[in-house]
Amino acid sequence: MKEYDVVTIGAGGAAYPAAFKLKRSGYNVIMIDKKGVMSGNCLSEGCVPSKAIIESVHKYNTLKGILDLKVDYKKIVDHKDSVQRLRYSDHDRELGEADLKIIKGTGRLVDENTVEVDTGTGIERYHADNIIIATGADTFIPNIKGSELAVTSRDFYSMDPKIKSVPESITIIGGGYIGVETGSFLSILGSRVTIIEMLDRILESMETDIIDKLIPLLPRMDVKTSSEVKSIEKFNDKLKVLLNDGEIVSDMVMMAAGRHPVLPEGLDDLGIKYTKHGINVNMSMQTNIKNIYATGDVNGITPLFHAAKRQSIIAANNIMAGNVPVDYFDPISVPFTLYTIPQLAYVGILPAQAERLGIEHYEATYDMKKDSLAEINNEVYGEITLVFDKRMKIIGGYVIGNDAGNIINEIALCVSRGLSLRDLAEMSHQHPMSFEGLDSAARKFY
Amino acid sequence: MKEYDVVTIGAGGAAYPAAFKLKRSGYNVIMIDKKGVMSGNCLSEGCVPSKAIIESVHKYNTLKGILDLKVDYKKIVDHKDSVQRLRYSDHDRELGEADLKIIKGTGRLVDENTVEVDTGTGIERYHADNIIIATGADTFIPNIKGSELAVTSRDFYSMDPKIKSVPESITIIGGGYIGVETGSFLSILGSRVTIIEMLDRILESMETDIIDKLIPLLPRMDVKTSSEVKSIEKFNDKLKVLLNDGEIVSDMVMMAAGRHPVLPEGLDDLGIKYTKHGINVNMSMQTNIKNIYATGDVNGITPLFHAAKRQSIIAANNIMAGNVPVDYFDPISVPFTLYTIPQLAYVGILPAQAERLGIEHYEATYDMKKDSLAEINNEVYGEITLVFDKRMKIIGGYVIGNDAGNIINEIALCVSRGLSLRDLAEMSHQHPMSFEGLDSAARKFY
Amino acid sequence: MKEYDVVTIGAGGAAYPAAFKLKRSGYNVIMIDKKGVMSGNCLSEGCVPSKAIIESVHKYNTLKGILDLKVDYKKIVDHKDSVQRLRYSDHDRELGEADLKIIKGTGRLVDENTVEVDTGTGIERYHADNIIIATGADTFIPNIKGSELAVTSRDFYSMDPKIKSVPESITIIGGGYIGVETGSFLSILGSRVTIIEMLDRILESMETDIIDKLIPLLPRMDVKTSSEVKSIEKFNDKLKVLLNDGEIVSDMVMMAAGRHPVLPEGLDDLGIKYTKHGINVNMSMQTNIKNIYATGDVNGITPLFHAAKRQSIIAANNIMAGNVPVDYFDPISVPFTLYTIPQLAYVGILPAQAERLGIEHYEATYDMKKDSLAEINNEVYGEITLVFDKRMKIIGGYVIGNDAGNIINEIALCVSRGLSLRDLAEMSHQHPMSFEGLDSAARKFY
Amino acid sequence: MKEYDVVTIGAGGAAYPAAFKLKRSGYNVIMIDKKGVMSGNCLSEGCVPSKAIIESVHKYNTLKGILDLKVDYKKIVDHKDSVQRLRYSDHDRELGEADLKIIKGTGRLVDENTVEVDTGTGIERYHADNIIIATGADTFIPNIKGSELAVTSRDFYSMDPKIKSVPESITIIGGGYIGVETGSFLSILGSRVTIIEMLDRILESMETDIIDKLIPLLPRMDVKTSSEVKSIEKFNDKLKVLLNDGEIVSDMVMMAAGRHPVLPEGLDDLGIKYTKHGINVNMSMQTNIKNIYATGDVNGITPLFHAAKRQSIIAANNIMAGNVPVDYFDPISVPFTLYTIPQLAYVGILPAQAERLGIEHYEATYDMKKDSLAEINNEVYGEITLVFDKRMKIIGGYVIGNDAGNIINEIALCVSRGLSLRDLAEMSHQHPMSFEGLDSAARKFY
Repeated sequence: MKEYDVVTIGAGGAAYPAAFKLKRSGYNVIMIDKKGVMSGNCLSEGCVPSKAIIESVHKYNTLKGILDLKVDYKKIVDHKDSVQRLRYSDHDRELGEADLKIIKGTGRLVDENTVEVDTGTGIERYHADNIIIATGADTFIPNIKGSELAVTSRDFYSMDPKIKSVPESITIIGGGYIGVETGSFLSILGSRVTIIEMLDRILESMETDIIDKLIPLLPRMDVKTSSEVKSIEKFNDKLKVLLNDGEIVSDMVMMAAGRHPVLPEGLDDLGIKYTKHGINVNMSMQTNIKNIYATGDVNGITPLFHAAKRQSIIAANNIMAGNVPVDYFDPISVPFTLYTIPQLAYVGILPAQAERLGIEHYEATYDMKKDSLAEINNEVYGEITLVFDKRMKIIGGYVIGNDAGNIINEIALCVSRGLSLRDLAEMSHQHPMSFEGLDSAARKFY
Repeated sequence: MKEYDVVTIGAGGAAYPAAFKLKRSGYNVIMIDKKGVMSGNCLSEGCVPSKAIIESVHKYNTLKGILDLKVDYKKIVDHKDSVQRLRYSDHDRELGEADLKIIKGTGRLVDENTVEVDTGTGIERYHADNIIIATGADTFIPNIKGSELAVTSRDFYSMDPKIKSVPESITIIGGGYIGVETGSFLSILGSRVTIIEMLDRILESMETDIIDKLIPLLPRMDVKTSSEVKSIEKFNDKLKVLLNDGEIVSDMVMMAAGRHPVLPEGLDDLGIKYTKHGINVNMSMQTNIKNIYATGDVNGITPLFHAAKRQSIIAANNIMAGNVPVDYFDPISVPFTLYTIPQLAYVGILPAQAERLGIEHYEATYDMKKDSLAEINNEVYGEITLVFDKRMKIIGGYVIGNDAGNIINEIALCVSRGLSLRDLAEMSHQHPMSFEGLDSAARKFY
Repeated sequence: MKEYDVVTIGAGGAAYPAAFKLKRSGYNVIMIDKKGVMSGNCLSEGCVPSKAIIESVHKYNTLKGILDLKVDYKKIVDHKDSVQRLRYSDHDRELGEADLKIIKGTGRLVDENTVEVDTGTGIERYHADNIIIATGADTFIPNIKGSELAVTSRDFYSMDPKIKSVPESITIIGGGYIGVETGSFLSILGSRVTIIEMLDRILESMETDIIDKLIPLLPRMDVKTSSEVKSIEKFNDKLKVLLNDGEIVSDMVMMAAGRHPVLPEGLDDLGIKYTKHGINVNMSMQTNIKNIYATGDVNGITPLFHAAKRQSIIAANNIMAGNVPVDYFDPISVPFTLYTIPQLAYVGILPAQAERLGIEHYEATYDMKKDSLAEINNEVYGEITLVFDKRMKIIGGYVIGNDAGNIINEIALCVSRGLSLRDLAEMSHQHPMSFEGLDSAARKFY
Repeated sequence: MKEYDVVTIGAGGAAYPAAFKLKRSGYNVIMIDKKGVMSGNCLSEGCVPSKAIIESVHKYNTLKGILDLKVDYKKIVDHKDSVQRLRYSDHDRELGEADLKIIKGTGRLVDENTVEVDTGTGIERYHADNIIIATGADTFIPNIKGSELAVTSRDFYSMDPKIKSVPESITIIGGGYIGVETGSFLSILGSRVTIIEMLDRILESMETDIIDKLIPLLPRMDVKTSSEVKSIEKFNDKLKVLLNDGEIVSDMVMMAAGRHPVLPEGLDDLGIKYTKHGINVNMSMQTNIKNIYATGDVNGITPLFHAAKRQSIIAANNIMAGNVPVDYFDPISVPFTLYTIPQLAYVGILPAQAERLGIEHYEATYDMKKDSLAEINNEVYGEITLVFDKRMKIIGGYVIGNDAGNIINEIALCVSRGLSLRDLAEMSHQHPMSFEGLDSAARKFY
């Protein structure tokens, strides 16, 4: 049995930041990963490749009034592939430089200090003082007849993906962020997009009042809510989706019904607690067994790459402190960006949440219709809204439109550091960037 | 004589924020402006129109490898004009909504409470408890034979500008930020650009070590330093610039030899102190006469639109407090962005400055070559550098490349609020945005 | 009618800070006060004189094991009188220096801009753009037969007070902070103290769990809870208090049944809203009429001198901003100290409150039994407890014992600025002061 | 050879916080100490016992106008002894609870991982991955004839000390803080105190302008500056100190000529760098050998108990991070209190220092003569001064008088967190505590 200070199950964003940090501090670390490469979903089929496509489409969209230009989706995909290729090679080099290794195989927890790996060619056992479970999440495929006919995000976003041209029409099953982001750019590229959502609205995990502001700004997509998919079947050279209340025929069907945590085997034997949302951890990222950590999507707290990285580092810090916690995760300060066109981003406590929590709160809003950069970019819509409590502390905020994914970071810093509306009001943000809206909004109260 | 609580001389970014704020609080305010419109240089010929052109060129530049596209400079200029038109109409509407008036004419200080205006059709006098001098700055035209043959930034950036096509070749006299920004986009659009700089390097007001990192990344421009322009003369249908050490022939010559404050008449009579850099003020924006303020470019502290706005508000707050100061300007926290392609942005105390000030300091750097978004945008170069002191407080920072003008804002907030490197290290910035570099850089020390 | 920019009704801690600030900024201000002097209850019969007595007793108490010493209560009272005299003369001098005036008389609101004053010798009217109601609070005397036989805090704490010796026995009606503070020092000085409280525990406005920790540390006092006073009557040369469930005979009876706001006449006519707790105001200190402010005890938010001062300044700042608010009160950051021996102090959100609000929270406690200074002072009991949320932000805290009234200020600053437990953990507080407990407590999580 | 993760040389405030923290996190730790007990100078003969005496004298001093009281110095010493006894037993219990051991003996560095201990009965060797040198400092005895006739701070402050009565007269050689603190309380107790200082002023390590404010407030002490001691000799039953410019006869002579670091043997062999001020370390507390740390007085950075504790924790944190630093010392935020009567305390950058560093700075001062608590305590003198830069950030501060050692902590927090003058101006500090001066001072600029 091989002896390690730390074993990670997984080698994506919830694992490798810890591995690198621990290695740098002299710890003996090994990563175990199904794919055998340093990449979670984010790089292989998630945020990086989708953003590579979306960003190209977004620039095209803002330029099309100004320049003569024509889209070739194949070239966009090629670009996306080149980005992924570059990142994979970055990662390989970094692994080598750090002298870190990944064992390809599926990890299983045997006891509090042992992970067993099925490498395909045999079974190996790794003993570790500490274990980080970072097994991520995977696309959830509902049990629907014909679901194998549908594509998934993987078919759009993996390396050399199946889909290299824009379908004339597409039916997207699931109105979560993956479906809506994909539908959004396809619509701009000329696809006729229909989204089917079981619940009574799309983007249901987000606040209604904010989504209601976003939806009119999105590219045209047909949305059917409160609608259940019964089956998918071939229909000539197209596909037909049968619903409880009708049917839709399109060239392509995408399954985007959400994601679920990938739990490693052995949790039950060890008595590690979990729910369907993921493995239970405290803010130190410890499971109920104090030397076993669960970081990233697998714990379901904040299933985002950037949260996973932070959680990974927290696990590393707490491992170095002998599992007596000295570092803690702050879920409130993690921003989320929906990469539709336009974007929506938010962080912290939003008005509807504040309402539900009984927090007296106020809003300071900047209308993007008056924003210099929005005008420069021909995107004269959206807003920046800061949410603050009666103590004038910024407790949250959201941005719709141009640069949402940028601006939200500064609001997140405000939320993280407990800054006040006045702290923003007194800033001189760079002109003409949309960040100016942060001080403009705040100045309404100062 | 008309009686006012406050008179502003000027109606640009250093004047109207104060005017609006004071009006909202019940003060009787009038603005006096040469152009008679609510716009300083920034909108009429400065940051807004230049950014409108540059941003279009920038997007073109990042897309040209991915999409088929062709530039028509005339359309870019049309777009720029439309942005300016939109902003002017925004401003008009805002003036009307606030019930604020602008007197067209040139203001002159008569005594501590009186401004005289030559309206062209007559002389009017305005009595005011408080005066805000916000007369801005103007292009400096050196005394060179043939200088009238040269264009200025106005010919590129004013509404319906003289220049509507890209010159085949251009000689830019002056290697300051205006010349370099203009040269940068012209070069991308195919112009052969030569910059003539009297001093021994371009961008001389900025730190050498940082500029040395930027220059190799800029579009190709020929630069002649330590070179003095003797005269400009016609040469067939071209122009010839005669230097102390040679001559250059090009289709167009641009004069970009810097800007100087526009001082109103009457300063000497009142004994208001000033230098060639502008009117002397303290951090409360008061001149040596406590009810007379000087805000924006005219005081020369931080000649940037966003600084002018903040200074204007400070003047308003201190006027409301009866000229007993309660609000103060922080020049250290104001970011500056050079809108070349790629951008350079910086804020606070930079390494070379820290060195000169004798501040023990360190740097935390993020290499943009490893940045997801930089890769997505095909701009795999540049860096984010955080500067911190031995107390681990962030005292400054700079960004080269993709999104510099965005990222610098969050660094500015750190500088403003005295945040520490750890405060950034613990953030989960949005992925995949270049803001991730902020926490990555900081984590090298945590 | 006399014209003013601002009229304050009252001249205590809720009025004069605004008056001084506004005057300094050139505003024309007048204060109207019943007593005609710059002093609210705090100086005339509240916090200052009571603290002067208590502090002497406290020092006596800690020294009595070390030095030979004997108390003469008369001398303590003389000292108290000298402190009050000194402060009154301070105030007079400050008034003179600021050229501020107080009109002696009772103010009545006539309309939104008029205050009428009955000066005793006539009626005067003052017109003001803005009005600050700062009429304070007064001892509440319940309607009990024989209540005129009881003394009040005034008889202990006013200048040259009625009570100049320690009663052999005293019955205190009311277990609020005034009764308990007075009982506490009297007990140390040898008095037999009985407290009668109608509710089921004393100090009922404070959190049970904290009070339960304090009570065992207080000097011996008999406490009868859930007990109602029926009447007070003479009984030989003593007084008998008849209760619903018994009777108590003692040398003195003190009425300490709480305080109620002193509302000026005219509120109803103007439609200014109030409850029995005081005049309704927002965090800008504005009543429902935006140029009429109510500050200090009269609004019932945080009836403490130091809160009144801050509220007064807020009113001044908002008046200067033309009643468009720019300054706001933060009730959460105001510390409260119970000047018993030992002291109890608290600020922010306490555990029981956090529980009720549904805020996930934790506690970091420092045991004063291990504190160097507590040992030096022979007061080896009590604790410092920091309350923090799951984000590790300090949301409140309390201190029992030695220096509570000092230490609570730094915790208040943490609450005000949104500081984190780590921010305290990394401090090096002065040794050997009890402030060390702040970093010690925090370090339990770092 | 015994194997440990960490060996500390010393068991005082620079060693045991690290030992406890590391032990708690599962590290195998041993402390080596000459005295064999968990106590540096602070407890055995420094800040704790001196403060126990001084605080008793201080209370006596403030009460003597109010109560009848008489001092018996012997009882004060008894009290001091009891405090020390209590703390020693606290420490013993804590050691036992943590299962930590101290080896009595003198540690010597043999190589980068080996400490040799001479236990008196033999030589032992300890192997350690990491070493913390925490050997402290000791009284410096200059080479003067007759110096053995002088007492030192040990004779006043150690357990069951030699000195149990107040000398009628005393000559103190050295005007540093130890001499002046001791002289200060002895003077109040009736001793005739003379201080001899070689340099041209006492308290020479502190800023002249501040010391000049303190000196007139101190109890009467004769001070001879620029005076060199030649020898000490017996003179009847007294002692005569011969100076270069005269002689002084007194009952007792105290040697208080400063302290010097106690360097362990072996530094030179290992090439560990040091100066006469102590061992060189960076802000991570690492010597030039990265697994060997030097914390507390031995590094000479901030020779104070509370700084030592923090430095000790920093060493522990960096050891846990594999000697790749993650925690850093901030010398600017450490307060210093001079326990004279009245006290002087300061922190951060003081005006004279700011001047020397070329930092534009301002001062906000609160006059303690107007302070309620100062009046209550009969100590109507002194001040609170906040030092801030042109950005309005609090960079330092000092307090003279009542509660200096308390108030300085909140200023230290401001300095540490980069808070602004406004942050203090908006606080409602507890009334009537001298902390009110913090907001009062700040409000002069707001």
